[in-house]
Amino acid sequence: MQEKQLHSRQKILFFNKDYISEFVYGGIDGAITTFAVVAGAEGAGLGIQVVVILGLANLIADGFSMSVGNFFSTKAERDSFERHRQVEYWEVENLHDKEVQEIREIYAAKGFKGELLEQVVEVITSNKEVWVDTMMKEELEMVKSDKTAYSTAGMTFFSFVTVGSVPLLSYFFAGTGPANTQELFLYSCILTGVALAIVGSLKSIVTEKNLFFGILETLFLGGIAAFLAYFVGDVLEKMFVNL
Amino acid sequence: MQEKQLHSRQKILFFNKDYISEFVYGGIDGAITTFAVVAGAEGAGLGIQVVVILGLANLIADGFSMSVGNFFSTKAERDSFERHRQVEYWEVENLHDKEVQEIREIYAAKGFKGELLEQVVEVITSNKEVWVDTMMKEELEMVKSDKTAYSTAGMTFFSFVTVGSVPLLSYFFAGTGPANTQELFLYSCILTGVALAIVGSLKSIVTEKNLFFGILETLFLGGIAAFLAYFVGDVLEKMFVNL
Repeated sequence: MQEKQLHSRQKILFFNKDYISEFVYGGIDGAITTFAVVAGAEGAGLGIQVVVILGLANLIADGFSMSVGNFFSTKAERDSFERHRQVEYWEVENLHDKEVQEIREIYAAKGFKGELLEQVVEVITSNKEVWVDTMMKEELEMVKSDKTAYSTAGMTFFSFVTVGSVPLLSYFFAGTGPANTQELFLYSCILTGVALAIVGSLKSIVTEKNLFFGILETLFLGGIAAFLAYFVGDVLEKMFVNL
Repeated sequence: MQEKQLHSRQKILFFNKDYISEFVYGGIDGAITTFAVVAGAEGAGLGIQVVVILGLANLIADGFSMSVGNFFSTKAERDSFERHRQVEYWEVENLHDKEVQEIREIYAAKGFKGELLEQVVEVITSNKEVWVDTMMKEELEMVKSDKTAYSTAGMTFFSFVTVGSVPLLSYFFAGTGPANTQELFLYSCILTGVALAIVGSLKSIVTEKNLFFGILETLFLGGIAAFLAYFVGDVLEKMFVNL
């Protein structure tokens, strides 16, 4: 148990490593989506305050939409686990001999044989909970995640909003006075890169992979996505709205 | 193995059940995002063809952005598994006695005791692969997913684009002639509901949960998200752009 904590519950500052995949997913999508809003607003020549308001409102709306998707996605995964577990219970009760043979094969593959193998099979199959648990892990390679749909959806929303607000920072701190919005947009492009780099580096730190490569791949693929978003949000919209 | 296929590889028509969580995630977000584009375009009074073009372009751009997020998210999960596996290998080699004791505790919890327990511990710890594999599954409750980052990202993109195109259908089939765009928008609202209901029902069919409840919960939370998206995409934008 202590060991498990050492491995899995380790936190980087306040960040729970278990949620790295939700953080990466929400953060990358949040940064790119906000960048698209900024690009569209820049194309439409909107004022600084309007960009900030639209950007923040979009963060909340899009972040909520993504979190709803995540909520049902995690729920589907957990429900699927429960369903498979029920099937295993049914099989253990109704296909007894076949399931005993499967336990025998699983433990034979681990190196057990002869009398010892039979004794192991007997102990495992004497407890339905242990039997089904073994089938789930060894046969189906399924484990029950301790992450609930609420927690993954919450982390997705948090990550979407915090990382996604980074491309807005230049507008946020530009104040209310007149400013060169082209310059602010340039800063926003850089900030979007910074946001992607933060996600890429945190990902590499948690999984202990090469930091430089982690940042590079996130910047590369994220950059393509941001360019596509820019193309739709600004170029295409301007083209048609001006028709 | 055959059993595993029965459980896990079952397909509904061409749909691989293993990817239900990616399908749900991409589909819900795709439907809501497209609805937001349609709502915004309707608010701006754009023509039918423009709505279709902007909608399709947005599907591709946003779908790609989400898939990039998914790609790195799955990658982070897989890298994290590998990292934990390396740690276990290290511990098996460097904290030998402690790890033997952990195997003993794991099998004691399964109901093994006395001489038989010691024999089981001996067989498990005589093969490093089996030993580490047992620690991963039993102690950390981690299994290696056979879904690669490419396959989950691909499924996310596919789902985002197909389900996400449903709210566009009314505009798509409206032809090029003059049409009542308010009516088309109303149809799009209904179609968005249909898209969410499809995702909700497929989710319920795969996980064998109550169909009615599955549709209802997707419509309810998806509806709130769609309203938020509508508020940002149409109401808020119109408010400020008309300032």
